[in-house]
Amino acid sequence: MDACNVALYGCGTVGMGVARALLEEGPLNARLCKPVRLAYIVETRRRQVVEQLQPPADVTLTDDLDAPLQDEDVHVVVELFGGTTTARRVVQRALAAGKDVVTANKALLAEHGDELYELARQAGRSIAFEASVGGGIPIIAALRNSFVGDRIESLYGIVNGTCNYVLTRMLQGGLEYDEALAEAQQMGYAEADPALDVEGHDTAHKLAVLARLAFGVNVRLQDISCEGITGVDVRDLRYAAALGYTLKLLAIGMRDGERLELRVHPALLRREHPLASIGGVYNAVCVHGHMVGEVVLTGKGAGRPATSSAVIGDIARLALGTYRSDFAGLSQFGRVPDAELVPFGRIRTRYYFRLDCLDRPGVLARVAGVLGEEDISIASVRQQELAEGGEEFVPVVFMTHEACEASMQKALQRINRLDVIRGRNTRMLRVEDI
Amino acid sequence: MDACNVALYGCGTVGMGVARALLEEGPLNARLCKPVRLAYIVETRRRQVVEQLQPPADVTLTDDLDAPLQDEDVHVVVELFGGTTTARRVVQRALAAGKDVVTANKALLAEHGDELYELARQAGRSIAFEASVGGGIPIIAALRNSFVGDRIESLYGIVNGTCNYVLTRMLQGGLEYDEALAEAQQMGYAEADPALDVEGHDTAHKLAVLARLAFGVNVRLQDISCEGITGVDVRDLRYAAALGYTLKLLAIGMRDGERLELRVHPALLRREHPLASIGGVYNAVCVHGHMVGEVVLTGKGAGRPATSSAVIGDIARLALGTYRSDFAGLSQFGRVPDAELVPFGRIRTRYYFRLDCLDRPGVLARVAGVLGEEDISIASVRQQELAEGGEEFVPVVFMTHEACEASMQKALQRINRLDVIRGRNTRMLRVEDI
Repeated sequence: MDACNVALYGCGTVGMGVARALLEEGPLNARLCKPVRLAYIVETRRRQVVEQLQPPADVTLTDDLDAPLQDEDVHVVVELFGGTTTARRVVQRALAAGKDVVTANKALLAEHGDELYELARQAGRSIAFEASVGGGIPIIAALRNSFVGDRIESLYGIVNGTCNYVLTRMLQGGLEYDEALAEAQQMGYAEADPALDVEGHDTAHKLAVLARLAFGVNVRLQDISCEGITGVDVRDLRYAAALGYTLKLLAIGMRDGERLELRVHPALLRREHPLASIGGVYNAVCVHGHMVGEVVLTGKGAGRPATSSAVIGDIARLALGTYRSDFAGLSQFGRVPDAELVPFGRIRTRYYFRLDCLDRPGVLARVAGVLGEEDISIASVRQQELAEGGEEFVPVVFMTHEACEASMQKALQRINRLDVIRGRNTRMLRVEDI
Repeated sequence: MDACNVALYGCGTVGMGVARALLEEGPLNARLCKPVRLAYIVETRRRQVVEQLQPPADVTLTDDLDAPLQDEDVHVVVELFGGTTTARRVVQRALAAGKDVVTANKALLAEHGDELYELARQAGRSIAFEASVGGGIPIIAALRNSFVGDRIESLYGIVNGTCNYVLTRMLQGGLEYDEALAEAQQMGYAEADPALDVEGHDTAHKLAVLARLAFGVNVRLQDISCEGITGVDVRDLRYAAALGYTLKLLAIGMRDGERLELRVHPALLRREHPLASIGGVYNAVCVHGHMVGEVVLTGKGAGRPATSSAVIGDIARLALGTYRSDFAGLSQFGRVPDAELVPFGRIRTRYYFRLDCLDRPGVLARVAGVLGEEDISIASVRQQELAEGGEEFVPVVFMTHEACEASMQKALQRINRLDVIRGRNTRMLRVEDI
């Protein structure tokens, strides 16, 4: 067979891993009867890094974005620039030039997937994006091809390694949020500007990518309600642990008939749930399909070699033609309806909340009164410790039965205004009893 | 697009699930732009069952194995007969007639995969077999396509739901082996003749299928050393639990340079290992690749709808042409070398063993003497309980450091001959410290 020539755009850590795997005599060569050749490395900023690779003479190093696209012998464009401006232009032009595309760029697909999938369909080409969610976990392939006969009922994902590392260290190491985040940065697990991760936006991007495959809808990113881990207090992790729960930042997709919920927020999971034990930088996705039942896929999410592995798998599939008919043949990549999501105020879950209550009689009755008026039923109450050293306020932890988000929000606003509550210390977490 | 016409051979429980999914207006129709049509149901024995389906008039019911193969409009043959005689003939003829094939038949692939893959390659057709291992867990797709760039270093699988159910019930319910097996049969999780499952042969079949994809070798079934769960004593599950271990029947594949081990046996896993918490009829496979790291896939293995889901996913991929180039393009399906396996006697693991020892001074010294002479180092010893009611023998549990299988076997033979040991009660289990 003729060789498949690859142009690699972007040579950061994942790109370096991909380049190395393409240049070495490795498993890819052994498994694939068709040779896959690295033809171009396009890098506008990191020329010195690229030169460390010592690529052979037949690999063209360039900062000209268009050169590989004008080369008819290039078959696959691998976009690892990140960002949504240049990356978008590269993918658009690559498809227009008749190239297949591999990308790890969840932000790009979350914001412009609808447009890019349509371009791929029109061009008779394919976009492969296994590396965009969950590093080396084959969740995209599972939703794209394996569970095609399933009505996906729900999807729960731990898909941000940085957040999972921070939460794991807070719980297991007793660190405060800031300490755990600083440690993650030192370890290279968190960016210097961690906002995209810790505020949940990266998780929301990934949820948008997954939701299109799972539920066959186009998701406008701003419709996903998104709450990160910045407000999480280590005390709540301990109190929740005492109740048998672990806190995870989850991407949640649920379909029940016409009701579709997509949301990102920290959530308490029972310790026995498979996702509860996913620690550190590991990622996991739990999918329920009406035939396949519950399937859980776990692996390194944030690891660089893991993500490179996913990119290589995608390159191989494009080289083989595996994905050739996906964009013509799978409705998820065609014109799908915009997602009509259940407004966040109307979701129903159980709730954990912690109040700083004045340590005197009658306080609980007043809190319970507000909850009752808002139709929220209490499952358990625990006073966590006695007031210390003249401290008048004691933390009290409540678990509710299932209640409506809007009611819960309203009840907490009212409770926070009570003169027996130190409202600024109130913390609330949602509970996913899956 | 033209319809893809399917001939379904065999309408047992999985086949019924597949037929229903193809006949209903369901997710498959919604996701696939190409119509997939059930054209034939071939059933030689269960005509009455098939008639319950009330298939529409354009579905041909027949007991003629050749009719669908002679029909040029049939594109995909789904072999769910099971067994290795008729099934083999059907797959051979289907490929020769230019049909793509879906099968859930691990015994067939383990015994005749080499021949059938070669036929598919020559015919320019594809065999899809996601349903052959792990029900709806997409492990075949992961090894076949996703981890193509990875050198697979190890693979550990819980791939027999019957055995996992029996072991789970023994540990959690305190049942004896016979009781747990009888319960599994009552629940429909075990066959009336459970030998294929409980003696480990089904697991060995699945390991042979996985090993070819993971390690690129042809496996002769008789080369896989295989030990089932029939000799497992509930007491060892309890003693191991006290040491922090859980017992699972594992399919194990390990490659270290030229050393390749393939084996099936019960093994103790640390309770913290992801596979240790896989209970009941759930299956899981844990793969280590040099880039992707550790990936664990979990789901219902023995469930009928889960297996039907995998068959439907395969039909969809063949309808789309996803697998069109796999047999020409992936070396695992070409002429691969026969596996040269490390002889079982030369594997090295840690060992758990339990001896019934006479409760008197000097016994331990004699046992330890034999172990020392066989180069086996003891990691821990626990006397489990005092001799009761005049019973002279007490159970003593040993854990060793890593040792050689042949040495361990020899040591136990010698120990069992000691006059202070009731040799017939000796039990040994391997420990996988992964």
